[in-house]
Amino acid sequence: MSTRECIFCKIIKGDAEGYIVFEDDISIAFLDVRPLNPGHCLLVPREHYETLMDIPDELIGPLFKNAKLISKAIEVGLEAQGIFVGINNRVSQSVPHLHIHIVPRNRGDNLKGFFWPRYPYKDRETILDIQNRIRGAINRLLIQP
Amino acid sequence: MSTRECIFCKIIKGDAEGYIVFEDDISIAFLDVRPLNPGHCLLVPREHYETLMDIPDELIGPLFKNAKLISKAIEVGLEAQGIFVGINNRVSQSVPHLHIHIVPRNRGDNLKGFFWPRYPYKDRETILDIQNRIRGAINRLLIQP
Repeated sequence: MSTRECIFCKIIKGDAEGYIVFEDDISIAFLDVRPLNPGHCLLVPREHYETLMDIPDELIGPLFKNAKLISKAIEVGLEAQGIFVGINNRVSQSVPHLHIHIVPRNRGDNLKGFFWPRYPYKDRETILDIQNRIRGAINRLLIQP
Repeated sequence: MSTRECIFCKIIKGDAEGYIVFEDDISIAFLDVRPLNPGHCLLVPREHYETLMDIPDELIGPLFKNAKLISKAIEVGLEAQGIFVGINNRVSQSVPHLHIHIVPRNRGDNLKGFFWPRYPYKDRETILDIQNRIRGAINRLLIQP
């Protein structure tokens, strides 16, 4: 997708409506109009990067400091009991412009129950194999990012 | 909960078993033994902070750079089509020591479908009211964090 067609780039440029709650030099946050819970915000970098894996390291600190600020603000401003922060990269990512979901949570809300379908590993060999594959990939990335 | 009783603090100190995939000065990552998908990692700061809202700003850059590294490594090492990154703060948070879930995703996997139950706002007044409450809280936090 070109940035010209990206709905988040349009909101950033003011070419599409957004219920903006925060802006600074590197990012913007606005309400998701189909929220998981009312007050669900999307924090996006102004530059068009597709995923967390694509953004430059120097953006990460400023961007996630803003995620912390918005999380605190949603807690206080909406009297939420908790905050869910989530990023879908590629799979389940509706708009291919990195967006951090920041969602107020309350016990017994929409997100309760269905959210975490977890299963144990079938045996120790499986877990050790997966551990080794991830460790190996990390080591290779640390040598040659 | 005191840090003495915290299971993640025990893993960090080597007092409990963890399938560790990454360690540096400020953080550690290990496999979740009840994963959403195999390869599901938890990245935690070494210091015991309860939520994203509680960690000092200077930790945020280094911690989320590591989240990016581990996301890339899971993509490559496990040939995942995508990565879900999530943080439950307070509500749905099983261990009160900040942990970033980093989960491999593939189309049609366990997490498909049930994951995002979204509803539009009932009217424009509601959305404007919520926008104002969050903006107000952000402005107050920027004056007095």
